Amino acid sequence: MLGSQLEMKKLINDPLDAPAEFLAGLALAHSDLLRVSLDPVYVVRADAPVPGKAGLLSGGGSGHEPMHAGFVGRGMLDAACPGAVFTSPTPDQIQAATRAANGGAGVLHIVKNYTGDILNFEMAAELCQAEGIDVRAVVINDDVAVEDSLYTAGRRGVGATVLAEKICGAAAERGYPLAEIETLCRKVNRRARSVGMALTPCTVPAAGKATFELAEDEIEMGIGIHGEPGRERLPLLPAAELIARMAGMVVADLPFRSGDQVIAMVNGMGGTPLMELYIVYRELHHILEGLGIRIARRLVGNYITSLEMAGCSLTLLQADDELLSLWDDPVLTAGLRWGL
Amino acid sequence: MLGSQLEMKKLINDPLDAPAEFLAGLALAHSDLLRVSLDPVYVVRADAPVPGKAGLLSGGGSGHEPMHAGFVGRGMLDAACPGAVFTSPTPDQIQAATRAANGGAGVLHIVKNYTGDILNFEMAAELCQAEGIDVRAVVINDDVAVEDSLYTAGRRGVGATVLAEKICGAAAERGYPLAEIETLCRKVNRRARSVGMALTPCTVPAAGKATFELAEDEIEMGIGIHGEPGRERLPLLPAAELIARMAGMVVADLPFRSGDQVIAMVNGMGGTPLMELYIVYRELHHILEGLGIRIARRLVGNYITSLEMAGCSLTLLQADDELLSLWDDPVLTAGLRWGL
Repeated sequence: MLGSQLEMKKLINDPLDAPAEFLAGLALAHSDLLRVSLDPVYVVRADAPVPGKAGLLSGGGSGHEPMHAGFVGRGMLDAACPGAVFTSPTPDQIQAATRAANGGAGVLHIVKNYTGDILNFEMAAELCQAEGIDVRAVVINDDVAVEDSLYTAGRRGVGATVLAEKICGAAAERGYPLAEIETLCRKVNRRARSVGMALTPCTVPAAGKATFELAEDEIEMGIGIHGEPGRERLPLLPAAELIARMAGMVVADLPFRSGDQVIAMVNGMGGTPLMELYIVYRELHHILEGLGIRIARRLVGNYITSLEMAGCSLTLLQADDELLSLWDDPVLTAGLRWGL
Repeated sequence: MLGSQLEMKKLINDPLDAPAEFLAGLALAHSDLLRVSLDPVYVVRADAPVPGKAGLLSGGGSGHEPMHAGFVGRGMLDAACPGAVFTSPTPDQIQAATRAANGGAGVLHIVKNYTGDILNFEMAAELCQAEGIDVRAVVINDDVAVEDSLYTAGRRGVGATVLAEKICGAAAERGYPLAEIETLCRKVNRRARSVGMALTPCTVPAAGKATFELAEDEIEMGIGIHGEPGRERLPLLPAAELIARMAGMVVADLPFRSGDQVIAMVNGMGGTPLMELYIVYRELHHILEGLGIRIARRLVGNYITSLEMAGCSLTLLQADDELLSLWDDPVLTAGLRWGL
């Protein structure tokens, strides 16, 4: 590609190399936190395997950064295995990453509910179990927008993944055994709900064209993180109306009730300015306050993205003392950091 | 606006209310860190004024979030006064914010070099001095792209502002007197250089149309953070070529030399995915390594943005032991956090 002209407006070299060059950059910037294997591709904590600690592994297609590679570090993931953009990682990647994350106490696979991811994680888990590694898997399926989707049977796994990785990562750091972390991860998934929307599509580098079409005056409500169709197309709406609809879908589903305290994530899809995300947060705060639901902790920013897509997603997790305490534990990763 | 259709793809309500609603959301999300005054508009540390501590104030147009309001908190700014989008704050805002930041040890104004900002900060400083507040000002002018620009005589102030706010904020927290912080801020500005580029323009909410036009196959090299014209228009180039040009401009200007260690910022303009920013970081790392320049510390992410503009900027600061030590001090703000 050098010397030639790119065919899309991206800060990349060869489109096919983008995920690997991202990982190389991540490793150069954060060599204190993580290292990268390129064959097969995975990212692992700099000090992995941590003897006696249950390992935490997640993975999926690239293009959702900082998730998952940006969440490898202290108090979160031990390893991540990113596939090509919006493409499941292969079983051999997952297997190698599982080995690297295993400090002798087994490894939890946190898997977003996409058919390809499920199949490949299951295959890798069988291979690892045959080697004597205790592997458990929890499937995240928090997206209330649609039942079944382009790449999914049942509900898609989205923002709850970020919360599960933080909370289970803290538990692993505290020394929880694998079985308890598995239970905890199921609890997070059971109590969390999300929905997303898109103002614009994004362009997968290797494809070179937008994942879908949206008119100048319409948005996609209930979008998937790979541009899968949502629940409906709507005209452009003011943030107040839009967030009222989204919060309504999320709250009604669990349902969240008056008196609940929640961990809330207002997540940008990649191309949305921070100004807009805090405007969204303000709307969400007032809507939940009106319902008697208190936001006890929050994340506002880009955590689970779709390349440069403009839009946002909301995730609510019904919290209790255990979840809040684990949430507050220190974390040190490229994408999420406090207390360290 | 409620009930009507928006005329641009943004997560906002009335375009004119966007900056104030952003601040309201920021205050709701981070009430432990900061509070917001709406008349006149400014943001101030929750515990301000801190008695005996020199105060740090910055400000400028909105639309560059997280700068500056997102940098108010422990170890960084005491106060920020944001104007309308891409519009200087008024003298009365700056005056009120200076009072709120003054714990009796005076206040440093960190001012980006734009003519309107300079005039209004100077007027506010005179008003505050007449009240007996010791006010000093340092003008940041690190952008090597162009001499004089649409809103600027001399060089524009860009990324070095973020580094100056972090480093001077740490010094203030340590108890440095105002005069020493002023000297330190001049040192940061003297040793820092930046350049930016845009793949796409952005849309100011109140204007409703793009700040400038770029063809599908061209980029603007040396762009300003308000969409001011840069040095030249170029065809789309691979990241390796683009970053070689940008790093070359920055390195040659100071000049940075073999043996230097630097604090490097790879900054996204708002609409650029993290994947691309780390690809840029990888290029920068290798270019500097080839020149014998070592990146001792780095920031990779969205810190000084132009709404949803796609593109990036590079900032290098020639570091020494004092600057690195202050850099490593804890910081707790909405936009930058470590150690707390």
